[in-house]
Amino acid sequence: MNVLVINAGSSSLKYQLVNVETQDVLAKGICERVGSAEAFHKHGIDENELVIDEPMEDHNAAMAVVLQALTSGPNAAIDSLDDIDAIGHRVVQGGKYFDRSVVIDEDVIAKIDELAELAPLHNKAALMGIRACQVQMPGKPMVAVFDTSFFQSIPPKAYMYPLPYELYEKYAIRKYGAHGTSHRYIAERAAAFMDEPIEDLKLITCHLGNGCSVSAIDHGVAVDTSMGLTPLDGLMMGTRCGAIDPAIVPFIMEKENLTTQEVNDLMNKKSGLLGISGISNDLRSVRDASESGNERAQLAYEMYSNSVKKYIGQYTAVMGGVDAIVLTAGVGENCEKMRRMIFAGLQPLGIKIDPERNKLRGSEREISTDDSVVRIVVIPTNEEYMIARDTYQLVKEGSLEVTEL
Amino acid sequence: MNVLVINAGSSSLKYQLVNVETQDVLAKGICERVGSAEAFHKHGIDENELVIDEPMEDHNAAMAVVLQALTSGPNAAIDSLDDIDAIGHRVVQGGKYFDRSVVIDEDVIAKIDELAELAPLHNKAALMGIRACQVQMPGKPMVAVFDTSFFQSIPPKAYMYPLPYELYEKYAIRKYGAHGTSHRYIAERAAAFMDEPIEDLKLITCHLGNGCSVSAIDHGVAVDTSMGLTPLDGLMMGTRCGAIDPAIVPFIMEKENLTTQEVNDLMNKKSGLLGISGISNDLRSVRDASESGNERAQLAYEMYSNSVKKYIGQYTAVMGGVDAIVLTAGVGENCEKMRRMIFAGLQPLGIKIDPERNKLRGSEREISTDDSVVRIVVIPTNEEYMIARDTYQLVKEGSLEVTEL
Repeated sequence: MNVLVINAGSSSLKYQLVNVETQDVLAKGICERVGSAEAFHKHGIDENELVIDEPMEDHNAAMAVVLQALTSGPNAAIDSLDDIDAIGHRVVQGGKYFDRSVVIDEDVIAKIDELAELAPLHNKAALMGIRACQVQMPGKPMVAVFDTSFFQSIPPKAYMYPLPYELYEKYAIRKYGAHGTSHRYIAERAAAFMDEPIEDLKLITCHLGNGCSVSAIDHGVAVDTSMGLTPLDGLMMGTRCGAIDPAIVPFIMEKENLTTQEVNDLMNKKSGLLGISGISNDLRSVRDASESGNERAQLAYEMYSNSVKKYIGQYTAVMGGVDAIVLTAGVGENCEKMRRMIFAGLQPLGIKIDPERNKLRGSEREISTDDSVVRIVVIPTNEEYMIARDTYQLVKEGSLEVTEL
Repeated sequence: MNVLVINAGSSSLKYQLVNVETQDVLAKGICERVGSAEAFHKHGIDENELVIDEPMEDHNAAMAVVLQALTSGPNAAIDSLDDIDAIGHRVVQGGKYFDRSVVIDEDVIAKIDELAELAPLHNKAALMGIRACQVQMPGKPMVAVFDTSFFQSIPPKAYMYPLPYELYEKYAIRKYGAHGTSHRYIAERAAAFMDEPIEDLKLITCHLGNGCSVSAIDHGVAVDTSMGLTPLDGLMMGTRCGAIDPAIVPFIMEKENLTTQEVNDLMNKKSGLLGISGISNDLRSVRDASESGNERAQLAYEMYSNSVKKYIGQYTAVMGGVDAIVLTAGVGENCEKMRRMIFAGLQPLGIKIDPERNKLRGSEREISTDDSVVRIVVIPTNEEYMIARDTYQLVKEGSLEVTEL
């Protein structure tokens, strides 16, 4: 069964065609700058990727371009649209309505629209992707997979903010989390890799990319996560500040005479590694600069590792222990030095990284020492596969089951 | 040697006269609503306290009232002002200038004034207290003891916020901490109580009152603390929200059409235990309501304990272990149930509270089990004595020494 996985942004449309049984990626690509005169389309796998300037006035036009490329031309992957069995859409905000993936109907669409209040750009974009598929492939079964649903199991003591309760009632201000599909995937894969039932494990999962989040997963159930009402909460990230003294927000607004939109931009786009180093939001560039003696880059690097280390301690306390720490995404999968710094000094807590194993690259692997009480596991994330699998289960089997990956 | 300890607020003047050698409190009191028609003065110890309506147009007038009460009337403690050897002032913000207490001169006054930028109400109030003493007791030696100075040892990776670096350069936005005098006192006392040199200990000190803060003190040196640029950062408190997703701040401002001042008030005065429970900022009232079945009170109670638990885990990771956790202030010293909840589930981390010892009331005591790897110690705080002792050392001995208390 082939599932077309769609991840629609406000001016982009990312996609992957996945054979769920074989886990093969048959095609992938992205339409960028949709709606502008500079729109272009990348299509193909690795070295066979083609980049074509294409006028695409909206997501509907972009979807037509994608389907054309999937079925004809040099990188065609299928003969006709009949070879697409179902469509899985990534949706950022599922709010309180969705604690799992669901088949899309008009009621689901209405709820995604309602939740756009909490994630204005993202949910509206997902809706454009969904509507475009309805136009281009009417009647094709579609599933929505939410970034937040995995975290609907978090208890009130962890998802509530200590603000006036009325704000929760009026505006649903609470923690929703993000990156849920990734945390769910790496938790399941880590359990399989360790050959232990996930129901027996206390896991701390760390998604460390340009966006960063850490989750506490207690016996298969998410009990806390670092992202909050928005993906700005929690850890220091590439361009985001994470949780800070909230009094700093009005302080900066007054000093710099900023609007609410401007201070949001400052915290989301000009902070984090980029803000401290002044060099880049990319940890590799920051590391290189720090190794060349740049003190602000060195500081940014230390702050980032310290931020992750604190969450590991925090969630160890929340769960009363931890069996394994799981790392994924750009930094978590690839940055040997950052991993070393995150775990430095944690030996007294039973967490020992193995310097040689930490150098290994490639697929799923363990990087802790044999005598480490807590195992450290690297699992490359695969959100697209998880979306395809959920779609497969709901469309083909009629219900979601947590199966071993 | 008698030291008059002054803690000046914007409309209050709190004081204690302390004999440093004997540690006796000779007199204490407070002038409240200074500058308003409802000004009054409380003076005396425990049941001998007198409350007198007194017109006090400013801190200078309040200081005259205090000195009058100290030297004459039914609760007089000394014969004349000659029996006051020195004055110790509590100052909230010492910024980057003061990493310890100092003898007050015009340069120190100018710096406290400059730092009012970071703590507008508090530092200006301290200056009013200092000026009033200069008028009423010209030439009397005075010392400033800062809430922040104990935390000047915190390294940049912990005191910097991941915001654009320019904001640090322009406005000195960074973590300064607060409650430093209390954390310093209970850390020293805990080491003495445990009969171990503080230089051998990793301590987590928890000041849990209406304001709450937790510090990591590694071998006698503060390496992190939960309060930040302002005392709003960190833990959930009586009326303060602590660290939250900073995107919530502009979100609330837009939804509720609030100014920067109004959102500051909301986060500082209407949040925390009060905001969630809707009942009180006082943990005792919240506990009583929760035990009567009030669900929001129960939620507030759980959130508060969870907030402390997370910091204990966080700072255990930061220091790579912890030898003792020290509790103080209203909640930390007195609330058996909250202490039980904070430490619930931490047995796998070597932290075991003893239910019987936890019931004990009174002075310095240990409430962990004999087989707890991490000791839990309750130390009633005494910031006034610490201020008096610093003043004594600087005035009498000419320098500060960390002596055993």
